[in-house]
Amino acid sequence: MKQVTIYDIAKEAKVSVATVSRVLNGTAPVKISTRAKIEALIQKHQFQPNAMARSLLSKETGIIGVILPDLTNPFFPEVFAGAEKEAQESGHTFLLCNTMGDYAKESEYLNIMQEKRVDGILFIGGRINLKECEPDLVQEMVEHAKKIPMVLINGNLRDTELTRVATDEYAGTMLAMRHLIELGHKRIGFIGGESHMTTTSNKLRAFRKSLRDAGLPVREDWILPDSFSMESGKQQMENLLEKKDRPTAVCCVNDFTAIGAIKTAIEHGLKVPDDMSIVGFDDIPLAHHVIPELTTVSQQASELGRTAMKVLRQLINKGKVKKLTSLEPQLAVRQSTAPAMMPSYSESFREISSG
Amino acid sequence: MKQVTIYDIAKEAKVSVATVSRVLNGTAPVKISTRAKIEALIQKHQFQPNAMARSLLSKETGIIGVILPDLTNPFFPEVFAGAEKEAQESGHTFLLCNTMGDYAKESEYLNIMQEKRVDGILFIGGRINLKECEPDLVQEMVEHAKKIPMVLINGNLRDTELTRVATDEYAGTMLAMRHLIELGHKRIGFIGGESHMTTTSNKLRAFRKSLRDAGLPVREDWILPDSFSMESGKQQMENLLEKKDRPTAVCCVNDFTAIGAIKTAIEHGLKVPDDMSIVGFDDIPLAHHVIPELTTVSQQASELGRTAMKVLRQLINKGKVKKLTSLEPQLAVRQSTAPAMMPSYSESFREISSG
Repeated sequence: MKQVTIYDIAKEAKVSVATVSRVLNGTAPVKISTRAKIEALIQKHQFQPNAMARSLLSKETGIIGVILPDLTNPFFPEVFAGAEKEAQESGHTFLLCNTMGDYAKESEYLNIMQEKRVDGILFIGGRINLKECEPDLVQEMVEHAKKIPMVLINGNLRDTELTRVATDEYAGTMLAMRHLIELGHKRIGFIGGESHMTTTSNKLRAFRKSLRDAGLPVREDWILPDSFSMESGKQQMENLLEKKDRPTAVCCVNDFTAIGAIKTAIEHGLKVPDDMSIVGFDDIPLAHHVIPELTTVSQQASELGRTAMKVLRQLINKGKVKKLTSLEPQLAVRQSTAPAMMPSYSESFREISSG
Repeated sequence: MKQVTIYDIAKEAKVSVATVSRVLNGTAPVKISTRAKIEALIQKHQFQPNAMARSLLSKETGIIGVILPDLTNPFFPEVFAGAEKEAQESGHTFLLCNTMGDYAKESEYLNIMQEKRVDGILFIGGRINLKECEPDLVQEMVEHAKKIPMVLINGNLRDTELTRVATDEYAGTMLAMRHLIELGHKRIGFIGGESHMTTTSNKLRAFRKSLRDAGLPVREDWILPDSFSMESGKQQMENLLEKKDRPTAVCCVNDFTAIGAIKTAIEHGLKVPDDMSIVGFDDIPLAHHVIPELTTVSQQASELGRTAMKVLRQLINKGKVKKLTSLEPQLAVRQSTAPAMMPSYSESFREISSG
């Protein structure tokens, strides 16, 4: 017979693990009716945690800490919502910390998570996305991970063995680029992303590789990294349109920059996708609410969160986990990409007119 | 001479109050260099909390709990970002809890906030937005507020004295409606919002009042409450367009539903704003990134968060605060509204063609 756990009790009582823990440990008041329901279930299942289980139990708070960089970018709330959905079964509750990518705040919140005795930490963005992370910031993470199970989402810290769940961003950009190239585009630019972040360099590596593989030129003056905001997408599309010749397609670092880029292109009288195809990355909910609907690489943000939470739970339960769980991205073809319009003609026309 | 407080020390050391508290109380390790900096400042200012201050101090965690309903609606991250900005000065850090508007989760998180000894709670959405909130849910809030300073944002619990900061939603909808009426619209509908929520009923009250004041008909079949999502805006615009005659302008419960409504209207071949004016409510960042840019009522979400945090800090410091701090909304006129096109003609035309 499978042994009944605190999670089973929580699930059957439709309460969180934290509440069952409160009843078992008497650490805080619980509503009388809820307490009665839980006690009845403990009775029914003859749930008697042995000494070791009890000591484990009294340590468990049922709380997961989530450290993320920017709640105003809808990608992160989506990842979180996935983790939350996954945690419904196990009754975990969450404390979220928003760092604005500030490393000092990350340190602060890591300390708070430890003080507040969370059962595990999901960490996304900030220092784990740096191409070069300072050794003491790395060391701090390693130290915390020794004490609290931790999963890094879409990031990495070099020379550490921290557990990771990540979308294969390189493969995702390859999908987007192959799509553009198959549509006949030969003149492709790249917009957005901070250069010191791995997400940018991963995507740019794939961008360059796919062009070279197809025997197409890599036009460095059409590669315009900046940041991850809509404003950044607008600004860089402005810059791109000021050039004497321009690409017929643009690959953007994320959906936010793609949406900004589309808006500016349309404001300049271009038709998207007829005059210019634009592809994003992330597949935020907004992607199919804008006009034209955005062709983008789906990270399956919700699935990413779910998977990270699953892996974290295994870590908490001292299960065996892979060091890296990789998620395959998918291309969502919508309305912002179309075949290149007479590429040879427009190309030569532009070259003549700009020459 | 003004007495130096823990907040002054934190500010000068560029660390959070929680960190200073850790140094003073020795509750958790602090990086050596940081500790040295803080100790030097304590020395410099001869910061000697007296017995009472020390007891207060040791109770203070520097942490604010935020309980909100749905992080995937960008309005809430914006409010939070405002509170966070305001708290930078005082060095407070935040623990966020996402409830999905589930009252049991709200209770859960209220308990956790108490266990984790936060200094104060900001509460937005969920039960405080109900037209009729169950007495035990109200009582629970009152009990928690006795122990932990609490500020309700954009909500209320009847017959309680809880401190509130709120946008005047009634006045905001009046602004939107007056704008439409001044543009010559005589046929105006309303989309979105759950009927049992006060935000919906406040806005609908203003909607009806402004029509009556202008001597215009209130067409009940054009009032289509539902929920607060883009999907809901799309669905209700579908329903509206299926009717044999339709309004020339629509007032939406929030920006999400307005953006959904615009998309569906355009997909049905209508021009926005030429064939139909659409106005939103909230002014989420997206509002000026969509095409056409959304005319909307600005709640100044960030300002709302800032103000709530200011009031909460006063409560924490035992200062005097008003029971209700009200924010005046503003109308942001952009591209989704325009003068009604020959209203008398189109009106009679539609009546004839549909009759």
